[in-house]
Amino acid sequence: MKKSDELMDVAIRRCILIPSSEIYSSPAGFYDYGPVGCEIKRKLENLWRQEFLQKEGFHEIETCLVVPEAVLKASGHAANFADPLVTCTNCKNKFRADHLISANKAAQKDGVKPEGLPPQQLSELVKKYNVECPDCAKPTLSEVSWFNMMFRTNIGPVEGNTAYFRPETAQGIFLDFARIVRNYGSRLPIGIGQVGRSARNEISPRQGLIRMREFTQMELEYFFNPSDQSHAKYERVKGEALRFVLEDGTAAQLTLEKAVADGVVPNQIMAYFLHKQKMLYLAAGIPEGKFHFKKIPKNDTPHYSKGNIDLEVETSYGLVETTGTAYRTDYDLSSHAKASGADLSVFVEEQKQRVVPHVVEPSMGVDRMFWCVLEYCYREKSAAKEWEWFDFPPAIAPYHAWIFPLMKKDGMDVKAREVEGKLRESGLSVYYQDSGSIGKRYARADEIGVPYCITVDYDTLEKGTVTLRFRNDGKQIRLAIGELPERILSFVKAGRVSE
Amino acid sequence: MKKSDELMDVAIRRCILIPSSEIYSSPAGFYDYGPVGCEIKRKLENLWRQEFLQKEGFHEIETCLVVPEAVLKASGHAANFADPLVTCTNCKNKFRADHLISANKAAQKDGVKPEGLPPQQLSELVKKYNVECPDCAKPTLSEVSWFNMMFRTNIGPVEGNTAYFRPETAQGIFLDFARIVRNYGSRLPIGIGQVGRSARNEISPRQGLIRMREFTQMELEYFFNPSDQSHAKYERVKGEALRFVLEDGTAAQLTLEKAVADGVVPNQIMAYFLHKQKMLYLAAGIPEGKFHFKKIPKNDTPHYSKGNIDLEVETSYGLVETTGTAYRTDYDLSSHAKASGADLSVFVEEQKQRVVPHVVEPSMGVDRMFWCVLEYCYREKSAAKEWEWFDFPPAIAPYHAWIFPLMKKDGMDVKAREVEGKLRESGLSVYYQDSGSIGKRYARADEIGVPYCITVDYDTLEKGTVTLRFRNDGKQIRLAIGELPERILSFVKAGRVSE
Repeated sequence: MKKSDELMDVAIRRCILIPSSEIYSSPAGFYDYGPVGCEIKRKLENLWRQEFLQKEGFHEIETCLVVPEAVLKASGHAANFADPLVTCTNCKNKFRADHLISANKAAQKDGVKPEGLPPQQLSELVKKYNVECPDCAKPTLSEVSWFNMMFRTNIGPVEGNTAYFRPETAQGIFLDFARIVRNYGSRLPIGIGQVGRSARNEISPRQGLIRMREFTQMELEYFFNPSDQSHAKYERVKGEALRFVLEDGTAAQLTLEKAVADGVVPNQIMAYFLHKQKMLYLAAGIPEGKFHFKKIPKNDTPHYSKGNIDLEVETSYGLVETTGTAYRTDYDLSSHAKASGADLSVFVEEQKQRVVPHVVEPSMGVDRMFWCVLEYCYREKSAAKEWEWFDFPPAIAPYHAWIFPLMKKDGMDVKAREVEGKLRESGLSVYYQDSGSIGKRYARADEIGVPYCITVDYDTLEKGTVTLRFRNDGKQIRLAIGELPERILSFVKAGRVSE
Repeated sequence: MKKSDELMDVAIRRCILIPSSEIYSSPAGFYDYGPVGCEIKRKLENLWRQEFLQKEGFHEIETCLVVPEAVLKASGHAANFADPLVTCTNCKNKFRADHLISANKAAQKDGVKPEGLPPQQLSELVKKYNVECPDCAKPTLSEVSWFNMMFRTNIGPVEGNTAYFRPETAQGIFLDFARIVRNYGSRLPIGIGQVGRSARNEISPRQGLIRMREFTQMELEYFFNPSDQSHAKYERVKGEALRFVLEDGTAAQLTLEKAVADGVVPNQIMAYFLHKQKMLYLAAGIPEGKFHFKKIPKNDTPHYSKGNIDLEVETSYGLVETTGTAYRTDYDLSSHAKASGADLSVFVEEQKQRVVPHVVEPSMGVDRMFWCVLEYCYREKSAAKEWEWFDFPPAIAPYHAWIFPLMKKDGMDVKAREVEGKLRESGLSVYYQDSGSIGKRYARADEIGVPYCITVDYDTLEKGTVTLRFRNDGKQIRLAIGELPERILSFVKAGRVSE
């Protein structure tokens, strides 16, 4: 079994993930988060909120998922947000043309890179290499055409009010920008972010959480005056180093200062947010050596871009882009201003003129990050632990602690329930478990990465103390019930998972 | 101006709400949450999480919004989730038939109640009362037909894979139930909840946040063994009283114990959750006298129901149902088991047999609750405050505190920024503001219901103390910067908004 399949299997067995509508044989590209996964996901999102919004003094909004066509015409999605589609004239199945060409041996030998090519060129490649239908094994493929990747619907009972399930959360931020900046004193820079669902009607979803049809994004739009590319906190971080992959494909470890000076990173603003991404990934348990920032070659960026840098992580699926940071200039605001007639500029007092702000956009995929967390926190069986477990940092573990009575008698279960209630009241997420041996319960807690286990025993009844077990080395300490909430929180804060 | 319009106007001006896609002339029934509203909304959702999930030891999941047709056929939504539609044969506009009949004077005089009637009967009423098209003012309306209220789409490039934007979050919970209950030891009762977006393609959305096309639900499904209708925490709450409106329309203040004994509330389980709803509403600032629990007459409940009770709030739109609690029996699990072939029963050790669990479902609308919070926390101008303001309980106010330098000189602004940073690091949501007079800044903070304002002045520079102003009476106290985080948190916890 491939490592990714094995991990997905573990994730499903432990209620981290559940294939969506599974009992109706799940459609491809949809996953639910089970109780264990949902807790972890929410903690990742809250970490992002804390770091990218709250500590920066930025604003969070929540915009609708159903978006009228006019918006997505202006943004370019209605016309260009498409994948190359090819149909088998024999079996009528449909495929992504570039994927089929990539899989063709002769095309591989010739070094053909079909990704991003227009339909006509793809059609020519299909013919040239006699590309076969993967189901029929015959060269019965049609011409290639564009398939728009948005889920289309209609608002209200009158046909023609076309709308789409949003393909990204960013557009909602651009639409609400003018009201928000005015409400906060019409001053730049201003940051506005959003966490929420987006959907893309992929032709062939694959690789579990990596290419889904419905997913969660955490997007920040940082609006600034184009004549000031500085960032107030840049001085504090400019000496920090990041691992880059440059346009020519070479790797380089550069300080932010050098990266900005050399033009690898277009400005201080983007440099600052790349550093924040790195810190977030480290906090989530993804090791520094396993991800890097890839500078996208100029030819592969949109015409309006002044620079795109992807965060790429080594996974069992290969290198995966989990985050994209783009210097989008004034493209979005100008496009919407033009299409809607609204004025989306801001009056800059010092310049005595109105400017259309520029935007740096760090756009992060929650699900892909989540998958990377699973991969890097997963631990195989070993001499020390005879079961697979997860080494989640306590800050993102699904529960703070599990709590057990040593036995279900002599009031130990009642006492354990009481302690459980107290811990819950103090805001800790705990879970009570009384079936199986204590050893089995420890194993089950380890299996979903719970950092601490609390056992109520005869000493608890007599002296009011419990044992607290640390996940990673299994060592135990004894402490008074009254001390528990504060101690657990201090362990969580310090990331302590062994004594 | 009507009170509701006035309040909506205030909410939009202060970035609590923003009409979605406003610059493209917003489609009806879609609202975004601006920075102020988003903070409040998230706090309401977290209050619910804390009370309805965490403190109960229940599980949260997150399921997909795009749902295949098979699921919604089994749940009954594909066939029955419809509104009566009527089209004007002259102007081609479309309307909800029952709304037009309700607005007809002669029908009103005859006491006609069209809500819930099938199309044929509505068509007869349209003819009988010569109901006119509201736009043409002519009796040119068509026959009435059903319009399915779900947003329809298609999964993937092959037509015929019909799917819908989910009309409720509950179905996802039923689909994942079997995996979850097994993962947690196959024991009943078990509670599984979800917070998320749902969408209904209303023919005529209206009343701001009350009838939207896209909205957020907080739904809990409590699965239990039908032969045990008790609840472990019932004893603690059975003496508490709720205001009911009974089936015959009379009002009654009943203890939970009496309500269960009299059959107003079908069992202890539902009684417990009704009490929790009341506590949540009180915590959110909605006064006890302004809402009640309405027992739905048996004839108006679905055939499978063993009891439905709505929480209704008095608003400027009239009485609004904001929450529905239903004893849904085993209808959902049995329907999905039948349609999918999956076994959704649980083996009950004591009975030595498999049972299909029964469900009590407290289903709460976030947006409607949000609107009620706005209504009851809104304060008109008065002698004491010459501006409109919001008296939000500190636990749900958009920011914990605003922070000002007395003047932007002598380093007071630098110091204020420093204090701001420290408060953020300790997890408080604060906002820095230095334009306008201090009086104006207090007014702006009051206008969005910020409970505390902190001013940095000359004494701060000399002695390290700041003034802390309480929103409700404007009184001020002085305290050391180091004390701020803990004191603010303790004020928030105690709900103290005046000295």
